[in-house]
Amino acid sequence: MMKTLLLNADMGESFGPWVMGLDHEVMPHVDLANVACGFHASDPDVIRMTVRLAKRHGVTVGAHPAYPDMVGFGRRSMACSAEEVENLVLYQVGALAGVCRAEGLEVGYVKPHGALYNDMMRDPEILDAVMRALVAYDVQLPLMVMATRDTRPPRELAERHGVTLWFEAFADRAYDAEGRLVSRRELGAVHHEPEVIVDQAQRIARGEPLTASDGSELVLAADTLCVHGDNPESIAAIKAIREALDGLASAS
Amino acid sequence: MMKTLLLNADMGESFGPWVMGLDHEVMPHVDLANVACGFHASDPDVIRMTVRLAKRHGVTVGAHPAYPDMVGFGRRSMACSAEEVENLVLYQVGALAGVCRAEGLEVGYVKPHGALYNDMMRDPEILDAVMRALVAYDVQLPLMVMATRDTRPPRELAERHGVTLWFEAFADRAYDAEGRLVSRRELGAVHHEPEVIVDQAQRIARGEPLTASDGSELVLAADTLCVHGDNPESIAAIKAIREALDGLASAS
Amino acid sequence: MMKTLLLNADMGESFGPWVMGLDHEVMPHVDLANVACGFHASDPDVIRMTVRLAKRHGVTVGAHPAYPDMVGFGRRSMACSAEEVENLVLYQVGALAGVCRAEGLEVGYVKPHGALYNDMMRDPEILDAVMRALVAYDVQLPLMVMATRDTRPPRELAERHGVTLWFEAFADRAYDAEGRLVSRRELGAVHHEPEVIVDQAQRIARGEPLTASDGSELVLAADTLCVHGDNPESIAAIKAIREALDGLASAS
Amino acid sequence: MMKTLLLNADMGESFGPWVMGLDHEVMPHVDLANVACGFHASDPDVIRMTVRLAKRHGVTVGAHPAYPDMVGFGRRSMACSAEEVENLVLYQVGALAGVCRAEGLEVGYVKPHGALYNDMMRDPEILDAVMRALVAYDVQLPLMVMATRDTRPPRELAERHGVTLWFEAFADRAYDAEGRLVSRRELGAVHHEPEVIVDQAQRIARGEPLTASDGSELVLAADTLCVHGDNPESIAAIKAIREALDGLASAS
Repeated sequence: MMKTLLLNADMGESFGPWVMGLDHEVMPHVDLANVACGFHASDPDVIRMTVRLAKRHGVTVGAHPAYPDMVGFGRRSMACSAEEVENLVLYQVGALAGVCRAEGLEVGYVKPHGALYNDMMRDPEILDAVMRALVAYDVQLPLMVMATRDTRPPRELAERHGVTLWFEAFADRAYDAEGRLVSRRELGAVHHEPEVIVDQAQRIARGEPLTASDGSELVLAADTLCVHGDNPESIAAIKAIREALDGLASAS
Repeated sequence: MMKTLLLNADMGESFGPWVMGLDHEVMPHVDLANVACGFHASDPDVIRMTVRLAKRHGVTVGAHPAYPDMVGFGRRSMACSAEEVENLVLYQVGALAGVCRAEGLEVGYVKPHGALYNDMMRDPEILDAVMRALVAYDVQLPLMVMATRDTRPPRELAERHGVTLWFEAFADRAYDAEGRLVSRRELGAVHHEPEVIVDQAQRIARGEPLTASDGSELVLAADTLCVHGDNPESIAAIKAIREALDGLASAS
Repeated sequence: MMKTLLLNADMGESFGPWVMGLDHEVMPHVDLANVACGFHASDPDVIRMTVRLAKRHGVTVGAHPAYPDMVGFGRRSMACSAEEVENLVLYQVGALAGVCRAEGLEVGYVKPHGALYNDMMRDPEILDAVMRALVAYDVQLPLMVMATRDTRPPRELAERHGVTLWFEAFADRAYDAEGRLVSRRELGAVHHEPEVIVDQAQRIARGEPLTASDGSELVLAADTLCVHGDNPESIAAIKAIREALDGLASAS
Repeated sequence: MMKTLLLNADMGESFGPWVMGLDHEVMPHVDLANVACGFHASDPDVIRMTVRLAKRHGVTVGAHPAYPDMVGFGRRSMACSAEEVENLVLYQVGALAGVCRAEGLEVGYVKPHGALYNDMMRDPEILDAVMRALVAYDVQLPLMVMATRDTRPPRELAERHGVTLWFEAFADRAYDAEGRLVSRRELGAVHHEPEVIVDQAQRIARGEPLTASDGSELVLAADTLCVHGDNPESIAAIKAIREALDGLASAS
């Protein structure tokens, strides 16, 4: 369990000539960079630049492995076998680690991306495959998973494997009573007002309950908060969250 | 410089459902497995199987990085920048190392594949880029290059970088006076008779001169011999070379 | 509805340097070649060769479009949207048609491949997307679907779109009572004895009932029979089926 | 030879989630859309959208085939054989044509992209391969090539094949005495002042000489002018050129 609520953001999602994300503006404000590994985004040159940028800002580099689906950006579930998942995680973590090593860094954690992340959260067989990859590669490497109301299932599996979990929450998304994200198709699924976002971040940091979509109270035990930096507004939101969390930290 | 002439072979060149090479029959007879890293051949599952096979036979795993050209099998020269070459080597060595680590192994050396290998041998800028990748990743990792008559240019560059070179020669190919392989398009470029192949292997192992295509004598200082295992005949040739070299080693 | 039971086979499944299938031995004995279009197998050169081979033997070329998943050979279901399916079918049919045109041929029908085929058979939204692609491209182009006990659902959808269906059956596979293929994981799912295979082919050709896995009678109204040519045994089976069907045709 | 100087622009260069180019702002002002075909950029969905956009504005769709190099955006020369070039052109033209057909359009011309375009201009074997693809596909399909001082070599080859050439020139690039573009690495290679760009466009349209980089006069016989729309400035330049050319046309 980490002491304070760390900020994590997806990084290195450019590909060849195509730029995505404002990595240079996000990196100074986060603690953890989830770096795409070349299966849903990124390429060796983008990875190198992203790792250098993380190093310059003292940000921990995490692997962000995905299904092999560039055109779908790893967002489409693919019927991969457990063994295929295990091996594609190993390959991608290793590839990122290779570039990190060239910069004197190590991969600090693993956060599966997109559909692989969602599949892992709902299918224990996929989660097991991801954990087997971590155990085989380096059992010390924490795995980032989603903080929900009942975290026992992933925790039990992680204990069996000896894997450390980092739970992540979202400041800009509404939750249902089970602690699942409300679908983006529903009204009110995404928070846009900065005060609401900062308030939710602070509640999560303090371990205070959120109000779930059915009105019930929801406490999320989170180690890290996921933030996004695609446009000037979202950069402003990241800075506001950063300040609010730093305020909490210095006050405690 | 290695004590005896080691045998190296390209391995793990299958891809998805497509099988290439008789890896199970070759592995027992070689010392070094050049494992494809996913850019010209192989995939995470094939790499895993190949690394396990190498482990079972005590064979050293080497990275076989290539240009990103699956359909062309990495055999087509691509105008990559030096920086692109450096980064694609890092990515591929790392990816293979990730799978190796899961099997308790390490990558033991690097041998660029196909067009990247040829480009590296004729263009010092590409060779320099490959070496920079090795220095950044692990300066202890030997680089396999081609043994030619005059090995000073690569040796000087390697010394400047502190990189160890392993020179490789071929038992089944004719050489020109400069120690370059005679083009496959020319008559007599490839040896087919087992005795000729074994004789050439023994000469290389003993440091004795070969007869170049112009009739001149050619001495190749080689650390390793490249062998291929695509069909029963080539497997037989590998075994014959293996026996001949083992005979030399036990006689010395 | 075609007069006689035509034989179809997957063709052009090689990729770059990797060879798959005995296309040269299968082509003389079939009527319809399902040619891979570059998303799960094949490449522009393989397509060109395959189309030429089909032309030489007077075989009708069909498009065999698939999910974009080379390493998985299009066998892994992917959560593509209906619109994505529509467009990837258009792209692949067009690509094949481009090569056909260079050889003076046209694409004669469309048979989705692997997971796309299975998804289309169980999900009307995917089937609808495939049909929309055909309607937009050329409503005359028949769509090959699986012959099951109850063919009303695909027929109703096809009538609504004005699309012609070709139903295909299998001579070497066991069926359940609904006319679905028995899973390969179950005993007896695949027929290996030549007499059994030829007998099943003849029954399908004559419109006679098969015995389903639960012992019930199953009549499949089929236009075409799918055959495979991966090894000498399967080539022999194709020839035996061909002879048996030709015998039926000349007797009628 | 076309009557007036048409404007062409590269379009459909987005890929999956990555957006490139301001296609919606460029399309209303051009005559010819060079649409990426999925080898260096674009995908079936992007192609569909781009073709629809072209249709809405009455813009002719041209195929923009490239080497198979997504991460390098088709800008890196690849040592493809003539036969490979011929087939990859056929595949890509066909794929685009498939989507066009779904929208009731046809491919109107072919303009190779990036490194394939450059290689075609300097290597007659590559140009010959591209022309063979056009002849095989549809000899009526014009091929866009670069207008240089001496256009005889491509014209002679085109006449032999019966292929129509469309010569393109650039309003924002400096030319050397041979009518080749001055390398971007050199000072003054790219014009930035709108008046200079519009003036060069008008000179080309009128058949008046430009001043080459060595001070000599250079007359380019061009059918079309290549414009780019990546940012607001370039959109403004396109509009200015459009107006200037329309002014010339109505004055004549």
